[in-house]
Amino acid sequence: MQFHLDGFNAGDPRVQAPSESAKTNPQTDSLPEQVDVLIVGCGPAGLTLAAQLAAFPDIRTRIIEQKEGPLKLGQADGVACRTMEMFEAFGFSRRVMEEAYWVNEVTFWKPDTKRPEHIVRNGRVQDTEDGLSEFPHVILNQARVHDFYLEVMKNSPSRLEPDYSRSLVDVEVDRKAADYPVTVRVARTDAAHQGEEEIVRARYVVGCDGARSAVRKSIGRELSGDSANQAWGVMDVLAVTDFPDIRLKAAIHSATEGNVLVIPREGGYLVRLYVELDKLNENERVASRNITVDHLIAAAQRVLHPYTLNVREVAWWSVYEIGQRICDHYDDVAGRSDCQDLPHVFIAGDACHTHSPKAGQGMNFSMQDTFNLGWKLASVLRGQCTPNLLHSYSAERQTVAQELIDFDRTWAKMFSDRPSEGGGEGGVDPKEFERYFVRQGRFTAGTETHYQPSQICAEATHQHLAQGFIIGKRFHSAPVVRLADARPLHLGHVARADGRWRLYAFAGEMDRAGAQSGIRALCEFLTDAPESPIRRYTPQGEDIDSVFDLRAVFQSSHREMAIDSMPTLLMPRKGRYGLNDYEKVFCPELDSGQDIFDLRGINRELGCLVIVRPDQYVAHVLPLNDHQSLAEFFAAFMVDLQP
Amino acid sequence: MQFHLDGFNAGDPRVQAPSESAKTNPQTDSLPEQVDVLIVGCGPAGLTLAAQLAAFPDIRTRIIEQKEGPLKLGQADGVACRTMEMFEAFGFSRRVMEEAYWVNEVTFWKPDTKRPEHIVRNGRVQDTEDGLSEFPHVILNQARVHDFYLEVMKNSPSRLEPDYSRSLVDVEVDRKAADYPVTVRVARTDAAHQGEEEIVRARYVVGCDGARSAVRKSIGRELSGDSANQAWGVMDVLAVTDFPDIRLKAAIHSATEGNVLVIPREGGYLVRLYVELDKLNENERVASRNITVDHLIAAAQRVLHPYTLNVREVAWWSVYEIGQRICDHYDDVAGRSDCQDLPHVFIAGDACHTHSPKAGQGMNFSMQDTFNLGWKLASVLRGQCTPNLLHSYSAERQTVAQELIDFDRTWAKMFSDRPSEGGGEGGVDPKEFERYFVRQGRFTAGTETHYQPSQICAEATHQHLAQGFIIGKRFHSAPVVRLADARPLHLGHVARADGRWRLYAFAGEMDRAGAQSGIRALCEFLTDAPESPIRRYTPQGEDIDSVFDLRAVFQSSHREMAIDSMPTLLMPRKGRYGLNDYEKVFCPELDSGQDIFDLRGINRELGCLVIVRPDQYVAHVLPLNDHQSLAEFFAAFMVDLQP
Repeated sequence: MQFHLDGFNAGDPRVQAPSESAKTNPQTDSLPEQVDVLIVGCGPAGLTLAAQLAAFPDIRTRIIEQKEGPLKLGQADGVACRTMEMFEAFGFSRRVMEEAYWVNEVTFWKPDTKRPEHIVRNGRVQDTEDGLSEFPHVILNQARVHDFYLEVMKNSPSRLEPDYSRSLVDVEVDRKAADYPVTVRVARTDAAHQGEEEIVRARYVVGCDGARSAVRKSIGRELSGDSANQAWGVMDVLAVTDFPDIRLKAAIHSATEGNVLVIPREGGYLVRLYVELDKLNENERVASRNITVDHLIAAAQRVLHPYTLNVREVAWWSVYEIGQRICDHYDDVAGRSDCQDLPHVFIAGDACHTHSPKAGQGMNFSMQDTFNLGWKLASVLRGQCTPNLLHSYSAERQTVAQELIDFDRTWAKMFSDRPSEGGGEGGVDPKEFERYFVRQGRFTAGTETHYQPSQICAEATHQHLAQGFIIGKRFHSAPVVRLADARPLHLGHVARADGRWRLYAFAGEMDRAGAQSGIRALCEFLTDAPESPIRRYTPQGEDIDSVFDLRAVFQSSHREMAIDSMPTLLMPRKGRYGLNDYEKVFCPELDSGQDIFDLRGINRELGCLVIVRPDQYVAHVLPLNDHQSLAEFFAAFMVDLQP
Repeated sequence: MQFHLDGFNAGDPRVQAPSESAKTNPQTDSLPEQVDVLIVGCGPAGLTLAAQLAAFPDIRTRIIEQKEGPLKLGQADGVACRTMEMFEAFGFSRRVMEEAYWVNEVTFWKPDTKRPEHIVRNGRVQDTEDGLSEFPHVILNQARVHDFYLEVMKNSPSRLEPDYSRSLVDVEVDRKAADYPVTVRVARTDAAHQGEEEIVRARYVVGCDGARSAVRKSIGRELSGDSANQAWGVMDVLAVTDFPDIRLKAAIHSATEGNVLVIPREGGYLVRLYVELDKLNENERVASRNITVDHLIAAAQRVLHPYTLNVREVAWWSVYEIGQRICDHYDDVAGRSDCQDLPHVFIAGDACHTHSPKAGQGMNFSMQDTFNLGWKLASVLRGQCTPNLLHSYSAERQTVAQELIDFDRTWAKMFSDRPSEGGGEGGVDPKEFERYFVRQGRFTAGTETHYQPSQICAEATHQHLAQGFIIGKRFHSAPVVRLADARPLHLGHVARADGRWRLYAFAGEMDRAGAQSGIRALCEFLTDAPESPIRRYTPQGEDIDSVFDLRAVFQSSHREMAIDSMPTLLMPRKGRYGLNDYEKVFCPELDSGQDIFDLRGINRELGCLVIVRPDQYVAHVLPLNDHQSLAEFFAAFMVDLQP
């Protein structure tokens, strides 16, 4: 956490200085006539995007929401490891870890062979394999995730807050308009403004407005996929039970009474139960069944037999149909004959993919959608990247969502199938279920998302130089020691949600930044060469690391390295005082044997350069000395600022 | 973190429900006529006490402060490991860790033998030895520590806030008064109330009002000790320098220009420099010298030669004399002929001991003073303990402060001495200085505080049963796995700043709470025996763990233990719904090889019971089956509630 660069400031460093426009022109209760980005919907997808854009006060962002205020309870609860890595970039991973339930192990229950009306424990596995992420898989009320994002927005230079009690009427795109091609009509729904309408013209509109997305409809997109024919119930309860695994995630298959998934909740007492209900008829909606919470409780009690469940309070409950549906394209132009046009309207989250809550993917995947979109919008709006970049959002996210849908379909089917030892008679073998769970652990942790090669994601030509930093997958953090202050930390945690690219330069053998050093040569290229991305794409007057944040990792112990022999670029002078930034150079964590070069399979002889996108995905792995390829990679999509 | 016990509550779980009296009778701008405890002074000592007492809304507490609002900058900065352990109990250790600078290593600089006008690095050591605490030694603006305490107070059931702009006029104790023996006169100093006086009658008054404490004077106590004859300056600066260890704690002895201590600060840029200034004459105050900050900067520049120091902003600076002074007694009766009287006025922090800031002990020791006093006051006011207990505050804290003063005197002298290779001519050998630093590391970490045997701190009769939990020292936490949810955590972190005693029962070999189990026998004694402390001292209608919080640690892996075979006391039903508390049982962290039984030298054959005070100090180690001694220990100072 760096602060005080431009002078000492008292108070909480997470509260950033407001921008000039936030001071002179604070947000009012009315929507402005023009905005750069209008976000529709204050769910996880919308708030991730809003929090990301709020970091850039030069971008005028607003976010509207139908509800009259922040969410208080219910809905999603699972936070995957990958999502925690993103929360770290937003600065609230540790608060989530403190407050949340940690999913450490999962148990599997099946009918007792001798007394099939009783359930028995049949297996126990670790939830997340060792080393998959430095963060745990946790469970926390979605409302709290919203709270943390709202705090980030409120503490940002933009001081962004949602505009509540506003429902979308329609969205129109005028492709001929030069500046603000999207016109949005918004109806105010609170008592004080009932009947009033607001017209907002936007450069970009992002629909994060859920499965019945009005933004989606406005651009003529549809969800398609399986019809829903299995009803489920979900309830958050305070209960007394003698079921021994009530504080573990537990998947329970009964012989004849259906299935239950137990998800313990934060705070030590609350628990969520997913309860299988009736099969529905073709095209039937669960709402037609008039299911009550007593119905859910009774069903759960039957599945848990011989254990008892005495529900003392129901904090929240709901019923839903399982269905996997997806949109073919996530913007207003992709896949169309006019797709040479630039996209101006996007959809994200449930607006473009819905699935069962069983694998805990809905909220997580939605947030990753807009974390993918956020930096792209910001870099286009700020003139850093060409607008073509925006095509990559639908291309990248739709493909990985399709994979999720396929996984979720299999998983949900297995979950609803009748248990059958050996898998006979169309049932699912409980051990097979458990094996599938383990095999798919990386998928549910969110770490298997793998973007295909594109402008912003290179071919894996040099992957052998860093086998643990897979191009197209998220940067897999590892422990290091910061040279200047000997502090142990996670290299990946230097990446903040600030829209910057990270260049991690791993030194070759014996390289200590001396005369023949590959690191020094790279720094010299970046500092001096006319084709250097830093020289070409960093605006005049901004800190030298404001677009590209170079960090170096050497192979020697930090006790053998000298900070004063580092190239200037690794100890850059920044801010109005020209103070040195001492946080650019790292060494392996040798005391604990957690050497990042071993952990991530980095070529020790040659080292390498790992280019990481603002959304934490590995974009490229290059030889340290391949300066030309480095320059070419960015030249493909960035806007040259050189005269 | 446990919450939702009495029903689901939306929002931040750190914000506790306000008490009835906080709701019906919220704090106003006027002091009440009567309070249970009046705290004078909003420094670290006063705020620790206020945060502790705020947990008990049945205790009427107020805290007054001369300043007109919260501290913004300056003053102390070092937070010792032991203090971080206490912050954990108050719930903000992780926020401090995120924001603070971590002191990982220390370097030592001395004059270059060949060119004595230049300094050279002469040594580098780890700041805190491995395994001393699970927390780092960190540096953070004292104002931020205040902020965190103020937040705890504000979020407490009491909703306690300081009363600013109030200066103490006098304190009088009427020993014959039955209820509110202390009368305090307070002058309001803000413009709106200038000239107004308030009279408050209190059961107890605690003077946390600094080295010139008016409370201390009112009870006729004096600081005595060395006269100050060495001036020092301190400044927090943003600077550009080529001194390579500017982000490490560095002790620098120059040949002829004096000494500097470098303490890097939070945020990556700010640094604190302690600069040795002139020797003072007998009884001279440094204020008489009219020293300016330019004087400080010039002195630091001379010491750092040949390195340069270009100060760009001074965030805060001050000058002071080094002096070690201490009060013989910390309350209004100790050491007096009338000491059979009960104490009603206490002093804490700088009001009773002052020392050099060099070892970073002032703020840390002050907070430990009132953490010691807080639970004692609370338990007497709540009718749990006899008022005699209050004598132990002065007895315990004065003794350990005397040890600190002695250490600090040696340390400060070594710091100010001229470096002299081999220690000749009255100088200090730099290597000897470094060795002293390492040897005293535990002292500066705050973990060497060792209370002598008393009513609340047993003789070490059974110390051999748990050699790593030293009676009289703080409970040294170690990793464990919670049985119910397989969560790895630190055993010591179950201890919150809630005034409760912790009983840690470590199981003997093969004990899994079965028929012959020592743990089971202990639980049965505590549940059923008439002399059980739980039965005797827990008020009717309160949760069974509201005074004594029993936790069990078994030797087996959590995968081999069954939660449903635990005695009821280890899965107690609590709150208005009678929900099970699943967080009482632990197993060793075997996967990482960090077995708490090995780490803390617990007798594997017999196990043991470790009794820990509300301030985290080990009060007793007993055989698991010595139920009689357990009962007798508490009978000596607790109030029997049995009819």
